Amino acid sequence: MQSTETRSIQYLDKAKNNMKEEIVIIGAGLVGSLLGIYLVKEGYKVSIYEGRADRRLEGVAAGRSINLALSDRGIKALEKVGVMKEVQDICIPMHSRGIHLADGKYIEQAYGTKGQFINSVSRGELNNILMNIAERSGVQFVFEHRCKKIDWDTNTIHFSTSSNKIVEKKTDLIFGADGAFSASRLSYQLKHDRFDYNQFFISHGYKELTIPAGENGSFLIEKNVLHIWPRGNYMLIALPNMDGSFTCTLFFPYEGANSFASLETPEKVKAFFQKEFTDVEKIMPTLTEDFFNNPTASLVTVKCFPWVLEDKFALIGDAAHAMVPFFGQGMNCGFEDCAVLHDVMQTHKGDWKKILAEYQTLRKPDGDAISDLALANFVEMRDKVADTKFIAQKKLEAQFHAKHPEKWIPAYSMVTFSPEMRYSTALQKGIEQQRIMDKVMGDKEMDVLSAEMEAAILKELAD
Amino acid sequence: MQSTETRSIQYLDKAKNNMKEEIVIIGAGLVGSLLGIYLVKEGYKVSIYEGRADRRLEGVAAGRSINLALSDRGIKALEKVGVMKEVQDICIPMHSRGIHLADGKYIEQAYGTKGQFINSVSRGELNNILMNIAERSGVQFVFEHRCKKIDWDTNTIHFSTSSNKIVEKKTDLIFGADGAFSASRLSYQLKHDRFDYNQFFISHGYKELTIPAGENGSFLIEKNVLHIWPRGNYMLIALPNMDGSFTCTLFFPYEGANSFASLETPEKVKAFFQKEFTDVEKIMPTLTEDFFNNPTASLVTVKCFPWVLEDKFALIGDAAHAMVPFFGQGMNCGFEDCAVLHDVMQTHKGDWKKILAEYQTLRKPDGDAISDLALANFVEMRDKVADTKFIAQKKLEAQFHAKHPEKWIPAYSMVTFSPEMRYSTALQKGIEQQRIMDKVMGDKEMDVLSAEMEAAILKELAD
Repeated sequence: MQSTETRSIQYLDKAKNNMKEEIVIIGAGLVGSLLGIYLVKEGYKVSIYEGRADRRLEGVAAGRSINLALSDRGIKALEKVGVMKEVQDICIPMHSRGIHLADGKYIEQAYGTKGQFINSVSRGELNNILMNIAERSGVQFVFEHRCKKIDWDTNTIHFSTSSNKIVEKKTDLIFGADGAFSASRLSYQLKHDRFDYNQFFISHGYKELTIPAGENGSFLIEKNVLHIWPRGNYMLIALPNMDGSFTCTLFFPYEGANSFASLETPEKVKAFFQKEFTDVEKIMPTLTEDFFNNPTASLVTVKCFPWVLEDKFALIGDAAHAMVPFFGQGMNCGFEDCAVLHDVMQTHKGDWKKILAEYQTLRKPDGDAISDLALANFVEMRDKVADTKFIAQKKLEAQFHAKHPEKWIPAYSMVTFSPEMRYSTALQKGIEQQRIMDKVMGDKEMDVLSAEMEAAILKELAD
Repeated sequence: MQSTETRSIQYLDKAKNNMKEEIVIIGAGLVGSLLGIYLVKEGYKVSIYEGRADRRLEGVAAGRSINLALSDRGIKALEKVGVMKEVQDICIPMHSRGIHLADGKYIEQAYGTKGQFINSVSRGELNNILMNIAERSGVQFVFEHRCKKIDWDTNTIHFSTSSNKIVEKKTDLIFGADGAFSASRLSYQLKHDRFDYNQFFISHGYKELTIPAGENGSFLIEKNVLHIWPRGNYMLIALPNMDGSFTCTLFFPYEGANSFASLETPEKVKAFFQKEFTDVEKIMPTLTEDFFNNPTASLVTVKCFPWVLEDKFALIGDAAHAMVPFFGQGMNCGFEDCAVLHDVMQTHKGDWKKILAEYQTLRKPDGDAISDLALANFVEMRDKVADTKFIAQKKLEAQFHAKHPEKWIPAYSMVTFSPEMRYSTALQKGIEQQRIMDKVMGDKEMDVLSAEMEAAILKELAD
């Protein structure tokens, strides 16, 4: 087992023959930090400019911690550059969806086959780990420098500092890793004569709530699952934290009968949760405080094209493809972006025009695909997971998959547990598989795969 | 017949009871100028701020004049505020599409029934007329003031002048009529937490070319038609000007075998036109100069939501719904926006929150619909108009319409000659009518309506 440092030196040696360039990454979030590690290990001089202060110097804001689901695609990208070992320590495996039905019943739906799971990780802690590794590897971080615009003729970035000074930075190559509301992307949009851009918001927002730890850091509900309270048009979810608490997220309409607009008093919030989320309300002592203190955040999808400018600029992560969080793939997709970029860097050594062009050709359809899948999964999570026919279909697919693993991988598994398959392929196959299941299942609600049904699926696949 | 001035005074009298407000319109283009007339006649204090210099003080740039097709919706909106009479003088009726087929044949397809036509008008002259009327009616114009941003807390617009001074203007109500790349819309997008925005470019651009007038201002090709040279993936069109010339527009791919990228020398341009547009190339003496001197312009569709902010701000015209030009409805739609706004002003006297909300509710689906129709019409213009089945269908529909005018209006006529019908209704009906024609025509290529086919259409309509 090589240490990160040994690997780092090997990368540097290997890179000595490459054309050296100075690269600036805008944004020290998860993707910007990981990208920094990838690039510095290839021998580039890398700086990451971040608008906010260094988050590692601040304590974690009490009562609020955002969790993300780290899964195989993200893990593969972290492993590729040797950082998964450190990340492992903050991972809490989640093997199943834990469905809390409206009638009080609780069922668990395995995410995949035995041994397959996703991981609850704290966004903040993961970001700190990646920043620390990046810094150790030689990335220079510059904080409190917010990108205001880019002068594309000279590749000069204009930053505004915390003291409102304008600082200019000229560089060879810029990566915009500055998130869903990317300033670098906006600057590119205003420059580019034919920039396709689409941002749209779903009619739901989200709010984070908390289930505190029990005595001695115990978990008050099942630890190793992703909890869902599906309620048709809305849902509550909960992911475990290392300290025994859970971060809950309510995905809820902005307007309407049951909505952020209608729950305008603590009494209404409490009554609503008692009625709709009876089991969990009992263990949320700070519910009404959290509800009114924590912001209501919006959910945006961003698609744009092109992602790159010659050999000068590329968008990556949310800046290229912000998506709704319902497939748990936003971060994983951004990490995969880094790994794919690294692959094409090997193919076109130092020829950044070709590298960026091929990166875009490969990743744009995949970014579009996972964005669409994420939107579709909202309906699945908040509604279908409680539906008997949906549950039956999942069981039938699992049985067929067990018999014919080479012929059929359930849609969720293609996205989550098949990092060798492109998102765009998973989307296409998923649509075809749903067509087959609709046809084969018809009105039947059996959940044991009959020989007849198995034959029917095989016939459809062969056609 | 009332004079414009008499009407104007009546409007002012009527408006005296209204709450007076100061309104700023950003953009002195066609829609901004017409909107100014509408609002000043309702008794408001209206200023129009324009980034460019006063175009009326500049001569028309030699050799370049953009034409637009003014049709019933636009005319209705101009008549409503009493300005059509002056516009009439610059209208050249176009009764038909004049199709120049690749084999040299020329055929004319009437746009509608006898007496129905669209009008070729010079954008520049029409803009001048509307600005003059607006100014006479009391609108104040401020030129060389380019909107940079809007401070939404105080409704203060920041303009940059031609001498790069920043001028601030606080006002009660702002209309963003600043076109497809609206700065006011961008400022709204950056303010609004949940602003849906979509801009996308088709893979074709356009370039303006010229057929000069013949001797004594004669027209070298048929005057009262809109000429089209449909060539499958691209096309050339020509609209008549008052001076006997025609403004031609080539809609052409940016990239590919036949494209702006591939025609990179005068020789190649000339050879291409000689081969593809044989008849017209002979009467385009400045073809290659025009081709390389005139810019290649892009074709954008913009959709966004919301269009309004409380009682403070509204987008109108291209700023709200930029569309491709293939249905000749961009300007007509913008003018109709003004007329619809005027209607809802009468309903909600002075209550601008209600006025803007209802304006948006009415116009957003119509803006979306005509944008989609315009995209679809590109395929029709450049390809289908030369198709025998398409031509047969048009003839059959015209015959059915003549027999059952209350039951069937051809899609083009619903959009162009039926201003009482909303664009969104025209889109829905058009889709349904196409379904019926596809079913009823099948593989037949007859172009005379049989009793059997008539009965079949009637049956479909009744179902």
